[in-house]
Formats: sequence, C-alpha cells, structure tokens
Amino acid sequence: MANQLQLILGGARSGKSRTAEQRVADSGLNKIYLATATAGDGEMSARIKKHQADRDGHWQLLEEPLGLAQTLREQSRVDNCILVDCLTLWLSNCLHYNCWPEQRQALLDSVEQLPGAVIFVTNEVGQGIVPMGELTRQFVDEAGFLHQRLAAVCDRVTMVIAGLAQELKVPAQ
Amino acid sequence: MANQLQLILGGARSGKSRTAEQRVADSGLNKIYLATATAGDGEMSARIKKHQADRDGHWQLLEEPLGLAQTLREQSRVDNCILVDCLTLWLSNCLHYNCWPEQRQALLDSVEQLPGAVIFVTNEVGQGIVPMGELTRQFVDEAGFLHQRLAAVCDRVTMVIAGLAQELKVPAQ
Amino acid sequence: MANQLQLILGGARSGKSRTAEQRVADSGLNKIYLATATAGDGEMSARIKKHQADRDGHWQLLEEPLGLAQTLREQSRVDNCILVDCLTLWLSNCLHYNCWPEQRQALLDSVEQLPGAVIFVTNEVGQGIVPMGELTRQFVDEAGFLHQRLAAVCDRVTMVIAGLAQELKVPAQ
Repeated sequence: MANQLQLILGGARSGKSRTAEQRVADSGLNKIYLATATAGDGEMSARIKKHQADRDGHWQLLEEPLGLAQTLREQSRVDNCILVDCLTLWLSNCLHYNCWPEQRQALLDSVEQLPGAVIFVTNEVGQGIVPMGELTRQFVDEAGFLHQRLAAVCDRVTMVIAGLAQELKVPAQ
Repeated sequence: MANQLQLILGGARSGKSRTAEQRVADSGLNKIYLATATAGDGEMSARIKKHQADRDGHWQLLEEPLGLAQTLREQSRVDNCILVDCLTLWLSNCLHYNCWPEQRQALLDSVEQLPGAVIFVTNEVGQGIVPMGELTRQFVDEAGFLHQRLAAVCDRVTMVIAGLAQELKVPAQ
Repeated sequence: MANQLQLILGGARSGKSRTAEQRVADSGLNKIYLATATAGDGEMSARIKKHQADRDGHWQLLEEPLGLAQTLREQSRVDNCILVDCLTLWLSNCLHYNCWPEQRQALLDSVEQLPGAVIFVTNEVGQGIVPMGELTRQFVDEAGFLHQRLAAVCDRVTMVIAGLAQELKVPAQ
C-alpha cells in the first residue's frame, strides 16, 4: 500500500480533481468522494451536482465542510479509497467558523493512522501576489504550512499543471 | 514532426517567450510571430515594438487579437513555425469582446489539423489567490480549461520558471 | 565548489527558507544568515526573532534591507556560506526607496566574483493574477527579470513546493 496517502496540488482548473478521480478509479478500492463544500450555496451546489453527474453509481458521496478528521476516521477502511476535494475549501470553511487550529491538529494527529487510502486534493495558492487583507494572508500562510505538513507524511505528492501530473514525491520502492 | 504543436506555460516575466523564440529559431522553419496584442494601446505597442526590435529581419510579424483559429488556418504551412504570443491575452480580448466560446471552439476544432508547427505561449495565472470579481474568476477558470485542452493535444508541453524550461510532456519517441 | 551560487524559489510558506537553511548547514561552511528585512516593523521583527530562535549559536545574523551587493562583497569569504532571505523583500525595499536599478545592477555585476558560497531565497510571485496597481505590476515584472538573470549565473536552481525540492538546474558534473 505504498500509495496509501496522496497529496495532489494544482492551480485553479489545473485538472487536479480529474487526476485524483482517475487514481481512485485505478486503485480498485471502493470509491468515496468526500466534498468539503456543502450544497448550501449556489456555485458549490452546482459543483457538487456536476461531481455527482460526473460519477457513475459506484461512487459514494459525502459532504463535510469542517470535521474532516472525524469523518475520515469514521469512513476510512482498508478496502476503500477516499478522495478529499478539497483541502483549501476546508481551510476556508474552518477559518470562517473559527475552528482551524483544532481541526488542523485533529487531521495531522490522525492521518497517519487511517486504515485505508486517502487522496487529498488542494489548491496551490501561494505562487502569486497575495492581495491585501489579513484574512487572505492568513489563508495563504495556513495553506502553505498545511501542504508542507501533509506532504511530509504522504507517500506520494503530485503537482498538476495543465492536466499533466508532475511527481514531487514518489513512494519508496 | 514530433514537435508540431507545443504549449509553453510560464508566470509573468518567466522567460517563456524567449524560450519559445529560441525553439522557433532552432526549428529551421520559416519564422512567424503572431501577436495577440494590438499596437493600439500604449504598453502593448511598446511590447510589440520591443518584439520587433528583438527579431532580425527573418521574422514575419502578424497581429490578431481575436480570430486566432482563422489566422492559424490561413498562415500555417508545412514549412513554417508560428509562435502565438500569447494565449491569455487572446482569452482576455475574446472575453472583452464577448466572443470567447466560439473562438475557443474554433481553435480546439482546428488546431490538430494545421499543417505546420505552432508554438503557443501562455501565462500560468492559476497558482495564486484569485482576486475578487466575476470576470477575473472567469478568466482564471477559462485559462485553466484551455491549458488542459491544449496540453492534451500538444506534442510537447513546457513550464518555464526563472528562464529554465521544465518539460511537462515530451514527444513520444 | 559546484554549488557556490544557489537560487531557491518557492511560493509563500512553501518551505523554501527551511530548504535553504538545511543546505547551508550541510555545506560545512561558516553559516551567515543575511536578512533583507529589518526589525523595524512588527511582523518583520517577529520573523527575525523567530529566525534567531530557530538557529543555534553557530549562525551569524546580519540585516541589510538595501545594499545587498555591498554586504555580500564585504562578508563573502571562501570559508562561509551566506543565506540571503529573501530577494523579493529586498526588491520591495529598493522599489520603496527608489534605488532598485542601481542596487540590482550592483548585485548582477558582482555576484559571480564573490569568493564564497551564497544561497538566495526568493518568492515566486508571477504565477497568479497580478492585482491592479502599477507598483504591483512593476514588482512582479522586476522579480521575474531578476530570477531569470540570477538563475542564468547560479550553479543550482531549485523550486520548493510543499516543502519538497524540485531541481530546475543542477551543477554540471
């Protein structure tokens, strides 16, 4: 299980989610899509519907905007692969609801103990000018720190550019 | 002709145009520079003049802000190499003039049938925070989708960082 | 001394400084941390204090917000390795104090003649949307040009993403 934990980074519309979906399909495991968006707002509702329509009946769909660690602990099994899409939206939700430090810590404390495979999708947001505003700065900083922490414990880390996967870290043979 | 279609991505002032110009020169084909900017506004006029001055007399210079597919169909020949600089400016023009969906489709429908070599230069704009505004969001989304679509059909895809070329996709041997 | 000059690029909180610090430590040379921030303002003061606390007593700490080339000429010795953290902050300082053209030129004129090792850390800021404003545009343009110029003369150029080093240019064997 060398690909037990994967982190897939990419810019906006880079094809990172599609790359992740293909890897879940290729895993041969039961497929779970864990959306950190909720269907509550318009654009997100449309995205979730699109994701549902994109998937055949063999995907199980979960929504969890905040309690990512707990949901992963409850859902992870040795015979399934969970796609978390995406970490930056989860971060944004947690900052909004003032629960980031505890949610982040809960994830980092438990991610290596999960029995099944997990593929995290996340936005690279730190390679441009950071617009004014303390919250934006905090978002960029926290995303960067989270990516470093997760990349350190993931077996495989990939950057997707224009739909093309670049391996940043590959499983030890 | 394994390098018939190339996509060169890069951030602002990354050296992507210079990389593209070198590849056109190395192709041994007739060199055509297709600017998607027009000389109408000040900064762009200066950039085009700079590009003209940068090139020796062996370059043919074309300007086409909107009808990229038609110009490529008219100009592409088996013995020439067209440098399109750049796609994101063309996208911006088309969004401004409300003709993006048809222009994009025209390019995607015809690009694989062009008889000659084409090197597309484009800005990576999706790896930072997207500033507020619906048009900006649309621009970033459409740029990302376009890059994915073109990268899928190009023979070679390159990311330029600090003037250094990183190959994302190389021609099959 | 194939790694005499190194350029380490990375987005915000990408782990680029940590990567640089590790390389200085691995060099076996005397370790100098040259901060282009000054302790004058709050956030920067906190960052410098953090950097001081992060380092054991074997680091020498220098602060130079503007005259980078002169400080490097004065401090560079064959038995030391200077970590410059970071170039984009230095650029920002120089633009603010209207001395960028001469400071940039002074660095480019002298960097290849320095007797000791130097590792430059810098922010990749050009891969997102550039927010409105002439100064921001100039900052992004100048950062990009500087990265190209330095990358051309450095022995090793590295991009750090999520704490993982990607080699863009490696020393000739």
